[in-house]
Amino acid sequence: MVVTRKHFVATRGQGDAHDLTGTVAAAVADSSIQGGIVTVFVVGSTATVTTIEFEPGAIADLNGVLEQLAARNGDYRHHLRWGDDNGSSHVRAALMGPSITIPFADGKLLLGTWQQIMLLELDTRPRQREIVFQIVGD
Amino acid sequence: MVVTRKHFVATRGQGDAHDLTGTVAAAVADSSIQGGIVTVFVVGSTATVTTIEFEPGAIADLNGVLEQLAARNGDYRHHLRWGDDNGSSHVRAALMGPSITIPFADGKLLLGTWQQIMLLELDTRPRQREIVFQIVGD
Amino acid sequence: MVVTRKHFVATRGQGDAHDLTGTVAAAVADSSIQGGIVTVFVVGSTATVTTIEFEPGAIADLNGVLEQLAARNGDYRHHLRWGDDNGSSHVRAALMGPSITIPFADGKLLLGTWQQIMLLELDTRPRQREIVFQIVGD
Repeated sequence: MVVTRKHFVATRGQGDAHDLTGTVAAAVADSSIQGGIVTVFVVGSTATVTTIEFEPGAIADLNGVLEQLAARNGDYRHHLRWGDDNGSSHVRAALMGPSITIPFADGKLLLGTWQQIMLLELDTRPRQREIVFQIVGD
Repeated sequence: MVVTRKHFVATRGQGDAHDLTGTVAAAVADSSIQGGIVTVFVVGSTATVTTIEFEPGAIADLNGVLEQLAARNGDYRHHLRWGDDNGSSHVRAALMGPSITIPFADGKLLLGTWQQIMLLELDTRPRQREIVFQIVGD
Repeated sequence: MVVTRKHFVATRGQGDAHDLTGTVAAAVADSSIQGGIVTVFVVGSTATVTTIEFEPGAIADLNGVLEQLAARNGDYRHHLRWGDDNGSSHVRAALMGPSITIPFADGKLLLGTWQQIMLLELDTRPRQREIVFQIVGD
């Protein structure tokens, strides 16, 4: 069985983090699928989904390392193409990937207590994000 | 239902990028599975699959950051073991992972307009790559 | 069909690597599911699962790059919150992700010869790790 749910989030630009755990858990519970996997996939090439202990310190630390890795104000070949300013966003998103896949059993996500599902905006401007929850199981 | 398809790509060495989007979309359409997920998995430990806006600037930017992160001509313990020169390839591949999982509905991949599926060669020499498209759904 | 298996590993702290390939392969073979995908997911936010050529050199090289990226003894905002010392662990884990998804056919994982499934401990202290193998297919 497959159930597809879409979820929309308005973000405030690079580094803005959203905890999706409750929304994903509710979608799984509502699906009436008891066991399986849910793929949480952000549509677009300048955002990522991962898991983290969702507290402001850890999120700031992650954003700090991403800034070291691919500085927002660095020189990017992508900027030359479109006049965009989001080369850092594309690099960060390609490195981190657009999705994660999480197992569930008895209708419940098998996450740790301090492990949340996070949408992290990587684009340099606010975006309206579409996230797909694809639930597969029986 | 599960459908397995294999796809082969000849690459030209580190940094060579291939857009797999059309091939994956065709495999999904041909599978007669309407909704589900497709895992795009590269066999081997020196390549990666991710999503990106597939244009030469963004790909060059990503390769530039990977070079900063794990320089091709750096010193690697892996080189001591086999006389290989691809320690940078192993590190980059382990960081990025061998696969992505993408949802589809009504036989169509739920990607963004500017979001393509990319095979990125990370090895230091040309390779013949085997990629598995594992389609699961109903 | 869905089969859930749990596996426990005692780790020795940051950088400790465990080869899970044989255990995952056995779980898939025992499941009597012939074809599908297995998601290997570590519960918690300070460890990762990826694939690598499992030999000490490549693992040391990866740990070296992770140390450059998010130094164990760096300053982290996360430390201020709880008095923890594992900010580096959270950053590394969020970057690498908690899971991989691997296709299998005829009851066998479609991995390369030199491609193993690795649990990498990222926390700064020994942990008892719970890993979920979620097998989905038919």
